[in-house]
Amino acid sequence: MKIDKLLLSHGGGGEETYFLIKEYILKYFSNPILNQLEDSAILTDSFSELAFTIDGFTVKPIFFKGGNIGKLAVTGTINDLVVVGARPLYLTVGFIIEEGFLMEDFEKILKSIKEEAEKNKIFIVAGDTKIVPKKEIDGIFITTSGIGKIVYKGISCSNLKPGDVIIVSGSIGDHGACILAEREGIKFDIELQSDCESLLPLAEELFNSKIEIHAMRDPTRGGLAATLYEWAYSSQVNIIIEEALIPVKPQVKAFCEALGFEPYHLPCEGRMVLSVPEKFAEKVLEIFKNHPSGSSAQIIGKVLEKSSFPQVILKTLYGTERVLENTSGELFPRIC
Amino acid sequence: MKIDKLLLSHGGGGEETYFLIKEYILKYFSNPILNQLEDSAILTDSFSELAFTIDGFTVKPIFFKGGNIGKLAVTGTINDLVVVGARPLYLTVGFIIEEGFLMEDFEKILKSIKEEAEKNKIFIVAGDTKIVPKKEIDGIFITTSGIGKIVYKGISCSNLKPGDVIIVSGSIGDHGACILAEREGIKFDIELQSDCESLLPLAEELFNSKIEIHAMRDPTRGGLAATLYEWAYSSQVNIIIEEALIPVKPQVKAFCEALGFEPYHLPCEGRMVLSVPEKFAEKVLEIFKNHPSGSSAQIIGKVLEKSSFPQVILKTLYGTERVLENTSGELFPRIC
Repeated sequence: MKIDKLLLSHGGGGEETYFLIKEYILKYFSNPILNQLEDSAILTDSFSELAFTIDGFTVKPIFFKGGNIGKLAVTGTINDLVVVGARPLYLTVGFIIEEGFLMEDFEKILKSIKEEAEKNKIFIVAGDTKIVPKKEIDGIFITTSGIGKIVYKGISCSNLKPGDVIIVSGSIGDHGACILAEREGIKFDIELQSDCESLLPLAEELFNSKIEIHAMRDPTRGGLAATLYEWAYSSQVNIIIEEALIPVKPQVKAFCEALGFEPYHLPCEGRMVLSVPEKFAEKVLEIFKNHPSGSSAQIIGKVLEKSSFPQVILKTLYGTERVLENTSGELFPRIC
Repeated sequence: MKIDKLLLSHGGGGEETYFLIKEYILKYFSNPILNQLEDSAILTDSFSELAFTIDGFTVKPIFFKGGNIGKLAVTGTINDLVVVGARPLYLTVGFIIEEGFLMEDFEKILKSIKEEAEKNKIFIVAGDTKIVPKKEIDGIFITTSGIGKIVYKGISCSNLKPGDVIIVSGSIGDHGACILAEREGIKFDIELQSDCESLLPLAEELFNSKIEIHAMRDPTRGGLAATLYEWAYSSQVNIIIEEALIPVKPQVKAFCEALGFEPYHLPCEGRMVLSVPEKFAEKVLEIFKNHPSGSSAQIIGKVLEKSSFPQVILKTLYGTERVLENTSGELFPRIC
């Protein structure tokens, strides 16, 4: 298989993205740190253990219920640091903006970035602004890069163990459904709202509580399905999750039914998926339920046996089992 | 003065950019580290002293004589680290790419990034790729973020001292003239070539040689004029430079004369400007002249007295003195 042209699906966070990274990006850039393919790089140098990450944001519309591109750019990078066990410390922000962009809108975005950074005690220490001529970019794109200090070691997508339970911190698909509905002008009785949020408060308590965490991810592009498949592939295990246990808001369910999606493929921007030994599951739920953002946390499944052809199984509402499809194609360009 | 819409000039690296940063960006993000406004943030934490920077690249055309957007993105970030006294260690790369972009071109870019990173012994440790629908971006934009370890302390744009000499490591304006000529299809007898290059080899020798460096910059957006004005403002000094001493290649001179530019406003992407005590000037020149990329290095002027209305003076070829205009407006969108 060879790529001739980059397609939207290569940025979709699912199978094609994985292929692009494995076959092309790593062909050139392969090194032991990058090859981990975690959400942030772990830099173990003489000075300390740091996490380092970068993420681009092209979401459309730039303002949406529950956030905007600025808030998303800060929380997205914070979350990438958090899920490798780091406390976020420093942030840099790069803007690329279309000529004629309204300053009023830019200031709203700056304000959100400021607020979100302050809330999470992360310092914005450097930045860059490029303005490009009209029509050479659609509005504003933001790339944020962050440094964090590793405070919890050993979290890795290749660290899932048979017997682990899989937990999500809240309902899935909220961000994806909200952005698509707003972009396409689809209205529901109950308004869709993005879950865009920092995972730091939840993670800090987990890190402080001596819970053994094997894997932790924010299921963004590619949704829950892509996260679970990445884990299954990296850890060479089968995973089973139960439809009846997965929290999905009624309005997200309605959205999915109306448009023919499954919520497992919709990105979240403020949810955490965990793989932990079963004996820690209740403690995790207790911590989550104490937070407003973790109030609908659920154990949704478990890690099965080791496997050289890893699969993620979905136990349906009818009690049958089927292979959960990995996310592929690109249904949702510019979702984050 | 108030900005209603972002104009190309706000990204030009001259006066308007300075205004945008001072009046808007710092209004929201102000903190002691960011407020330094150096090319990289200096992080003095318990663990060590690190430099951290981010930079976006939107250059058009993406392939040009002397480099391409990939090489530029690596050297640009390396240079931002180098000029604050850091040895570059880690790099992250964020791509935002138009759907349908040729993989062949993407691979050429990846290859350049790899080569330039290897040459400079900087590790690419994390990355991100977003693909956006056709016409929502023009081709490919790259944002790179870098971490370096501070190996030389005290370099700062507010550290110029009366009596310092100003030195450039090579001819100015090569990158700007090359990009503009290629974009507009202007041909000269002698081909224009970008100076796009890492400053690490030159800087390492300076750092190792115990030369006292007061200020060091790569004059990119805004060119030599914007760098000198930033220094003059930050250090509250007047600066004089001599037209006869400033190295400008004949083909760049011809380009400037034909199009009515002055080379002082054209960006360089592989040149270093220094402010050092006079007694170190000969040593700096000796080091520079030993390198192919420093062979046309020159002392071009000096730092005059302290001033609360700092100015940069140009002594012309006719021996007269005039105020050098700071770069303003945006003659060169997407130059880097």
